Amino acid sequence: MKQHTISVDAYQGDGFFGAYQKLVRETVIPYQYRVLNDTVADAEPSHVLENFRNAGKVLRGEAPDSDFYGMVFQDSDAAKWLEAAAYSLINHPDAELEQTMDEVIALIADAQDSDGYLNTYFTISNREKRWQNLLEGHELYCSGHMMEAACAYYQATGKRALLDVMLRNMEHIYQRHIVQGIEGVPGHPEVELALMKMYRATGDERCLELARYFVDTRGTNPRYYADEVARRDWSVWGNNPWNNDYQQSGKPVREQTVATGHAVRAVYLYTAMADLANVTEDATLYAACKNLWNSITRRRMYVTGGIGSTVLGEAFSVDYDLPSDTAYAETCASIGLIFFASRMLENEVRGEYADVMERALYNTVLAGMQLDGKRFFYVNPLECVPGISGEAPTHRHTLTQRPGWYACACCPPNVARLLTSIGQYAYGENEDTAFCHLYASGQVRFANGISLRCETEYPYGFTVRYHIGGNGNLAVRIPAWSKTYHIRCNGGAADCKQKDGYVYLAVADGDVVELVLDDTPRFVYPSVKIAALSGCAAVQRGPLVYCFEGVDNGDDVLSLRFRQNGSLCAEGDRIVAEGYRVEGCADLYTETPYTVKSCEIYGVPYYTWGNRGENQMRVFLPIMG
Amino acid sequence: MKQHTISVDAYQGDGFFGAYQKLVRETVIPYQYRVLNDTVADAEPSHVLENFRNAGKVLRGEAPDSDFYGMVFQDSDAAKWLEAAAYSLINHPDAELEQTMDEVIALIADAQDSDGYLNTYFTISNREKRWQNLLEGHELYCSGHMMEAACAYYQATGKRALLDVMLRNMEHIYQRHIVQGIEGVPGHPEVELALMKMYRATGDERCLELARYFVDTRGTNPRYYADEVARRDWSVWGNNPWNNDYQQSGKPVREQTVATGHAVRAVYLYTAMADLANVTEDATLYAACKNLWNSITRRRMYVTGGIGSTVLGEAFSVDYDLPSDTAYAETCASIGLIFFASRMLENEVRGEYADVMERALYNTVLAGMQLDGKRFFYVNPLECVPGISGEAPTHRHTLTQRPGWYACACCPPNVARLLTSIGQYAYGENEDTAFCHLYASGQVRFANGISLRCETEYPYGFTVRYHIGGNGNLAVRIPAWSKTYHIRCNGGAADCKQKDGYVYLAVADGDVVELVLDDTPRFVYPSVKIAALSGCAAVQRGPLVYCFEGVDNGDDVLSLRFRQNGSLCAEGDRIVAEGYRVEGCADLYTETPYTVKSCEIYGVPYYTWGNRGENQMRVFLPIMG
Repeated sequence: MKQHTISVDAYQGDGFFGAYQKLVRETVIPYQYRVLNDTVADAEPSHVLENFRNAGKVLRGEAPDSDFYGMVFQDSDAAKWLEAAAYSLINHPDAELEQTMDEVIALIADAQDSDGYLNTYFTISNREKRWQNLLEGHELYCSGHMMEAACAYYQATGKRALLDVMLRNMEHIYQRHIVQGIEGVPGHPEVELALMKMYRATGDERCLELARYFVDTRGTNPRYYADEVARRDWSVWGNNPWNNDYQQSGKPVREQTVATGHAVRAVYLYTAMADLANVTEDATLYAACKNLWNSITRRRMYVTGGIGSTVLGEAFSVDYDLPSDTAYAETCASIGLIFFASRMLENEVRGEYADVMERALYNTVLAGMQLDGKRFFYVNPLECVPGISGEAPTHRHTLTQRPGWYACACCPPNVARLLTSIGQYAYGENEDTAFCHLYASGQVRFANGISLRCETEYPYGFTVRYHIGGNGNLAVRIPAWSKTYHIRCNGGAADCKQKDGYVYLAVADGDVVELVLDDTPRFVYPSVKIAALSGCAAVQRGPLVYCFEGVDNGDDVLSLRFRQNGSLCAEGDRIVAEGYRVEGCADLYTETPYTVKSCEIYGVPYYTWGNRGENQMRVFLPIMG
Repeated sequence: MKQHTISVDAYQGDGFFGAYQKLVRETVIPYQYRVLNDTVADAEPSHVLENFRNAGKVLRGEAPDSDFYGMVFQDSDAAKWLEAAAYSLINHPDAELEQTMDEVIALIADAQDSDGYLNTYFTISNREKRWQNLLEGHELYCSGHMMEAACAYYQATGKRALLDVMLRNMEHIYQRHIVQGIEGVPGHPEVELALMKMYRATGDERCLELARYFVDTRGTNPRYYADEVARRDWSVWGNNPWNNDYQQSGKPVREQTVATGHAVRAVYLYTAMADLANVTEDATLYAACKNLWNSITRRRMYVTGGIGSTVLGEAFSVDYDLPSDTAYAETCASIGLIFFASRMLENEVRGEYADVMERALYNTVLAGMQLDGKRFFYVNPLECVPGISGEAPTHRHTLTQRPGWYACACCPPNVARLLTSIGQYAYGENEDTAFCHLYASGQVRFANGISLRCETEYPYGFTVRYHIGGNGNLAVRIPAWSKTYHIRCNGGAADCKQKDGYVYLAVADGDVVELVLDDTPRFVYPSVKIAALSGCAAVQRGPLVYCFEGVDNGDDVLSLRFRQNGSLCAEGDRIVAEGYRVEGCADLYTETPYTVKSCEIYGVPYYTWGNRGENQMRVFLPIMG
C-alpha cells in the first residue's frame, strides 16, 4: 500500500515534539542566525551571510569586503537555517523572523549570477572554476539545499522569491546537463532529492527530468571523476577520483546492493532513489532501494539508528563492524536515514521503515543536540570514556561534550530542520486513510478530509489517544518492539486488521481511538557477528535506547555488569537494572578474579547523555551470571 | 643487585629455542638473504644489496646500475640480516655463510665514503642532503643497525672488517656532533643503543661519549626539528616537526614519565637510556627508565606483551586504550621491549623485568613469524575476524595471514637476530652468580667460571633441571604467574633465598638443581579500566597466552563464552575450557535471549595462530554465568 507524507503545514505539534519545536524556534534558530552572522563569541566563525553579501558585490563589479571564508559548501548552512526557520514559521508566524529571512533571501538573490548560477565560493574568487569539480566542489549540493529551503519558504509563506531564484538555478543546471548534454554527477548527492521536492512544489517536469538524469547517470561511467581530475589543475581536498565507493558511483544505482562510502551521501542518494522510484513507478529502482535498505538496517546500523561506523571517510564500514567507542554515527547520517525511511514508507507501508525512522530519531538525532538547544554532536558514539574518548589517536572524533558549532556545520541546522518539519515524518495519508507512523502529540489535518488530535506522553508514556475528525480509515503503526498492544475505539473493542506492522480501522467523526503500547523495559541483544559487542546487552524502553552515565553510577561505568536475567524497572524517565560492580583489579592484568558486588545500575535515555558534565557513558554493558 | 648479560657465544641452545635457532639458520637466514638479493618471486623487492653495490660505484665515480630503491632506511635490512647470521655462526660455524657475509661486508665497506659516511640512500643520488634531515632521514638509525651487526660479526668471527668500517663511521659522527659541536638528535633512536654495544665491544670511550650526547641532548630543544625543517627544502614523509611526542623529543629524557609516540623508537631509546644509566651509574636516568617502564607495563601493554596499540603513528595510545581488534602491537616493538627489559635487568635484578621479557618473547615476538619461518606478521592483533580484519577501514593493518615480506621489512630480520642471540636474554651473570632469567634449554658457559646445562621442555613442560659445573651461586627467576614452585638440589631440599622474583642458592660442581613451576592453566582478567575488554578473560599457561581459533572451534569463535569459574585443562599443547556457545541471534539486534549450549572451547598458544589458514581468532572471550 502506498501513502504520502502530509503537507508541511498540516501538523501543529505539542507535547514532546511541541517542546522541541519551541526549543528550536526560541533558541536554535536565533542562535544559528547569530552564528551565520559571526556574532557568537565562542563558536567557530561561519561567515556564510558575509559570503553571500560579497558574492553580490562581485557580481555588481564591486570589490568584496573579504575573501570567501569557510568550507566549499558553506552556503548550505544558510539554506538549512532558512529551511528550518521556514517550517517554524508555518505554525508560529513571526513577522520579525520572516523579515530577517526576506533579507537573507535578498542577499542570496543578489548573489545569483545572471545565468542562474548560485554559489558564493565560485563567485567571489574562483569563477573560472565553476563546474570543473563535481567530485569535491559541492555546487550541486549547495543548490540542492537551497532548493529545499526555497520549497519550504514557499510552502510556509507563499512567497516565491527564493523559489524563483532556485528555479532559475535549476534551469541553469538543466541547460548544462540536459540541453547541452554535458556529463556530470555530483560527488555529494543532495540535489536529486531536492529536485524531487521542487518537482512536487512546482510541478515543473524539468525538475523530475533532472533528478532522474543525476540518479540514472550515477555510476554508469566509473572513470567520470578521474576524467574530471585530468581536466583541471586544482582540487579541494585531493580526493581520489577512483574511490567511487566513497560517493556511491562505482556502479549504476540499480546494481548497487551494499551501502558504501560516506554515509550522508549514501542516504541522501537513496532518499532520492526511493522518491524517484515512487513517482515514476520504477520497480527496479525500488528493488535496489530495498537491497540498500537491508544492507544498512540489517548489517550496518547501530542500535541507536546511527550509521556510518567509521571516521575514515565518515563512512559505512564492512558488515557488522559496529564499534561503540570509535563510532562515527554522524547526526546528519541518521537524519538522512530518516529521509530514506520516509520515502520508503511512501513506496510501501511497512512498519520496519517507520521502526528504523523512530530508532534514528529518538536516539541519534536527538542526541545530536544538547537539551538546551545550544550545543551539538556531530559524532554519536555509544561509549564515552574520558581520557580515551577525544584523546586516543583513534578516538579524536568522539568528543565527550557537545561543542557550540563546527567549522563543518552540517549537523546543527539539519537537526533544526528535521524537528520543525517532524509532522511530515510522523504522519502520512492517501485518498481515504490517515497514517500515524510516529506517535507525535498534536493536531493533524489530512488533505483527505480526516483530521485528528493525538494525545500522548510518548516516548515517556505509552498510551496514545487519537481524537478523530471526519470519516475514513486510520492506520496506526505497531512497533516491532511492542510485544503486546491494546487498541480500543470509543472505549470498546476496535474492529481492526493488522498488516505489515500497522493496524487499520475505519473511523468516524468524533471517534476516540486509544492505543496502548508495551511499556516494559527490555534487554536488546546484538547479533553474535558484531564482534565489538560480544557478551553485552543494551536496554530499550519504547523507542528509547538507554545509556549508563557515570553521574548516575558512582562515576565508574566500566566496572558495571548487567545481571543475567536480572530485573529492569522504569522509574520515571530512568531505568534501574539489577547488576554488579566488579572491583579489585588494580593491575593491568591479574589472575585474581574480581570482587563482585550487587548494585543497581541507573540508565537514562541515550539522547540525553552528556548534558551533565563530562563522564563515562555506555550503551552496551557486559552481562554477568 | 646488578648483573650483566652473558657473552653472545656463551649459550648453545637446544630444545625449544634450539629448534627456533635451527629454523632461523636453515630457513630464515637463507630466505632473507634471497630477499635482500631480490630473488624471491612472491615477496616485496628489497634491493638492499644492490643499493650498496651502486653506492660503491658512485663513490668510485662510476654510474650506478639503477637508482636507490626502497625505504630511506633500507640499509638496515642488510644490517639486521648480518647481525642474525653472525649470531648464528657462533654456535654453528658455516664457512659458506661466512664467505657470503664477507662479500656483503665488502660491498658495505665499498659503499663507505672517504670521510666515514655510510648510507646508500644519501650516497647514490642525494649526497647534498646528507645530515639535513635527522627527523626522517634515518642515517643514524642505519648506522646504529650496522654497528650492531659489526659488533656481532666481530664477536662471532673475530674479524674486524665491519667493525673498522663502523668505527670510522662512528668517528665521522663524533666529529660532527662532539668535535664540531653541531646540534643533532636522531628522529629514530637506535644509534644510542648501538654505540653502547660498540663501547662494550671496543672500549672506545668516544662511543660512550657519543651515546651520552644523543641521550642527553634529546628533548632539550623542542624546536630542533622545526629548525631543521626550516633549513631544508625537502622531506621524506612530511613529518610534523612539532610532533615531538612521536619521537620522544618533547622533553629531556630524564623528565619523561609517559611512554609516547612510535613504540619502536620509544623502546630503542629507553634501552639505550637504561644501558647508559647502568654504565655511568646515573640514578636519575635509571629513575626515568623506571617511570617509562611502569608507564608501558602497567598501563599500555597487551597481555601478549604487545605495545604501541594504535596504527596511527605505530604508536602508544593513551593509558588503557588496548583494543584487541585494531591492535598494532608491532613485532619490532615487542623486540625492543625485550631489549629494554634486558637492560633494566642489568641495572637491577627484578623478576618483573624478566616476566615482561618472557611475555613479549613467547607471545608477540614468536607470533611475528610463521611456524615454518617463511612468513611474518608486522602487526599482532588479539582478535581476527575475516571480513573485518584487513578489510574495514580501521582494520586494514590487521592482516589475517602472514605475508612473505614487507616493503618496510624491519620485523622479519629483527625476529631472526633476537632468536639467534636469545642466550643473551635468557642468561646473565656477575662475579659470583649465574642468572637464569628465562628457561632456555641448552649449555651455558659463564665468564665467572660457572657453567650449566639446562634441561627443560619449557614452555610446554614446567620442570627445569640445571646441571651445574663450577662453584658459585645460582639465581633462578620465579615468574609472578607461578603461584607455587618447588626447587630441589640433588633431589633434596635446596637452601635458597628469595628476593625480587628470584631464588638464590649456592651451587657446587656436579649439583643438579631442579625447579618445578606451576603448570596450571589460568584465567587472566584485565583491569576494568581497559574498556575494550570489559567482561572478558584470557587464558595463560606458563608464559604462553592462548588464543581460540575457528579451525579448532567449529569456525565460529565470536559465539564462544567462557563459563564463569569453569574448568581449564591442558591437553598436550592445547587448552580445553568449559564454555558456552550462544546461538540464535540472526537479527542485527533482538530482544530474544540467545540460545545457550554448553561446549568445550579449544585454545592454542597465541604465537601459533594463523598457521592453519584464515580463520577467526580471539585471545579474550566474554565470561558467561
